[in-house]
Amino acid sequence: MTNNVPTAAILVIGDEILSGRTKDRNIGFIADRMTELGIDLKEVRIVADERAAIIEAVQALSGRYSVVFTTGGIGPTHDDITAETVAEAFGVTAPVDERAAAILQQHYDRTGREMTEARLRMARIPVGAELIENHVSGAPGFSIGNVHVMAGVPSIMQSMLDALTPRLPTSIVLQSETIEAHRGETDVSAMLEDVQSRFLQVQIGSYPYHDGEKYTTRIVARSRDSEMLASAVEALKSGLKAS
Amino acid sequence: MTNNVPTAAILVIGDEILSGRTKDRNIGFIADRMTELGIDLKEVRIVADERAAIIEAVQALSGRYSVVFTTGGIGPTHDDITAETVAEAFGVTAPVDERAAAILQQHYDRTGREMTEARLRMARIPVGAELIENHVSGAPGFSIGNVHVMAGVPSIMQSMLDALTPRLPTSIVLQSETIEAHRGETDVSAMLEDVQSRFLQVQIGSYPYHDGEKYTTRIVARSRDSEMLASAVEALKSGLKAS
Repeated sequence: MTNNVPTAAILVIGDEILSGRTKDRNIGFIADRMTELGIDLKEVRIVADERAAIIEAVQALSGRYSVVFTTGGIGPTHDDITAETVAEAFGVTAPVDERAAAILQQHYDRTGREMTEARLRMARIPVGAELIENHVSGAPGFSIGNVHVMAGVPSIMQSMLDALTPRLPTSIVLQSETIEAHRGETDVSAMLEDVQSRFLQVQIGSYPYHDGEKYTTRIVARSRDSEMLASAVEALKSGLKAS
Repeated sequence: MTNNVPTAAILVIGDEILSGRTKDRNIGFIADRMTELGIDLKEVRIVADERAAIIEAVQALSGRYSVVFTTGGIGPTHDDITAETVAEAFGVTAPVDERAAAILQQHYDRTGREMTEARLRMARIPVGAELIENHVSGAPGFSIGNVHVMAGVPSIMQSMLDALTPRLPTSIVLQSETIEAHRGETDVSAMLEDVQSRFLQVQIGSYPYHDGEKYTTRIVARSRDSEMLASAVEALKSGLKAS
């Protein structure tokens, strides 16, 4: 397989997509990213939040493709069953993970909210899994085997996919840097657009979130060219100082 | 099964969706329609235009759910392999169908274009299949077993789904009427919105197409209430006369 193009599948987990209540925006985003990375997206499945359907799809897809991305079902409510169900598909359990609990605790301390039992559900991670950083809302995703489990909310999913990208099986090495804007997304969008237009080989993403006091934004710059990346990051930092 | 809610799956066939080049708009539309009809959409798959992938998905989904909708891959080019591949999944062939060829011939006669070998490809229909009317561009879809094969272009898919709706396994009887507007969609959109706002139990759809001379529009009204439907159709006809 070393010389072959890596393959991928997406598994969208969500009753709300199947009912039409929510229109999926993640498939197109992940598809674009796969194309950028030279990974061949071969299949997408959307299933309900049902144990048997999720396990069957995870096993079928993870056996067939180099990587599998799941979106949805990792929130704090009782119908968010993705973590324990993916664990079950791999024959392990998903107890509360100390690393994930610490990240959540930090996030809630920083945003002045309390850790609750429901929120602690989001720290359940399959044994042996690696965490996927979430710049937007704290609660991490995770990777187990070749399956990468991400949130369903598009801005969070995009942040997780950015964090995950350097670990994906592509021959193209992507580097990334994250900058905290300390202000809302609309206050930096013109500057971002300007910098983006000057650095076409750098992909610049922005992730708005609420830090407990105000809406603020994390900016992520990614490139295969480290010098370009450094120059773009410089430009972003000066842009932030000037604005 | 008589008392159970019917179930459905969607199979999107299209490299262009998997590459991210085209963003799917059909899944959300079909999902909404299923909800309106009381059909439980259980699964969606997106696969490439590849014989083995299509056959496997058609067989898996048609064995498991009451109805399956496919979109994409029924155009005139060599990579449009849905018709013969779905036929193969059902163990039949897909020769040129006389009914479909006549519909295409009529369409090209009316729009002043020539029937070509490529266009005749769109008349290949699995043996034993029922046609699905296409108000937009002539070339029909088809139903074989519980699998309904539709176009990938959203306006055409929507027209086919409307034509198909009365045949779907729901206890709710929908009636529909089609009106030819003889003018472009933007010339009737305000009138349609007005009539729609007065007849909330009638679903009014509009399907723009080029009739060979000009852009024109077919209007389709659907309702479970035949008196309401008749009144709405009257209102649409007066609206067209007045505008």
